[in-house]
Amino acid sequence: MEQNYPVIHHVFFWLKNSGSTQDREQLIAGVKTLAAIETVKHLHVGVVADTEKRDVVENSWDVSELMFFSDVAGQKVYQDHPVHQDFVKNYSHLWQKVVVYDAVSV
Amino acid sequence: MEQNYPVIHHVFFWLKNSGSTQDREQLIAGVKTLAAIETVKHLHVGVVADTEKRDVVENSWDVSELMFFSDVAGQKVYQDHPVHQDFVKNYSHLWQKVVVYDAVSV
Repeated sequence: MEQNYPVIHHVFFWLKNSGSTQDREQLIAGVKTLAAIETVKHLHVGVVADTEKRDVVENSWDVSELMFFSDVAGQKVYQDHPVHQDFVKNYSHLWQKVVVYDAVSV
Repeated sequence: MEQNYPVIHHVFFWLKNSGSTQDREQLIAGVKTLAAIETVKHLHVGVVADTEKRDVVENSWDVSELMFFSDVAGQKVYQDHPVHQDFVKNYSHLWQKVVVYDAVSV
């Protein structure tokens, strides 16, 4: 997989209403719409895992989105895609903070 | 893949010597040793991708480690494994900061 889809895009969302199961489910459903974008490979939508709580573990976020792309151009196609723009338009009222990590496999 | 390896462990390292190619390569080699741990699936070792610089993109880190596990128990096996403990012992002098995200696919 490293060779075919080396570009990794990992986004973490903090909800405005952090305790709201309803808002969390709504955002999860929204993130899943992004799988329709042709350059998006292996979309994983996540919530905080029940691993050991340690100082280095950041677990204050609510929903995560992990995607793989063939290249940086594919990530740009995703970024500008109408489906992504609709996602931001329709769901951004749910979150208060977003942090993005873009990595390339070595 | 979501069904088989739903637990995602993503670690970001900030080097003490952030500009040092040598330290970066050394840490990359170190992270790659972790693939020997039997519960670790699909290890991706990364560096910052050349995507668009935006306010939400965190790109001050140096090396990333993305792993998939079958379950939280598998992540715990990794955490306590001698190969992981050796990695910390042999390479932790290279980094000044670590941030970990543990997600489970939904």
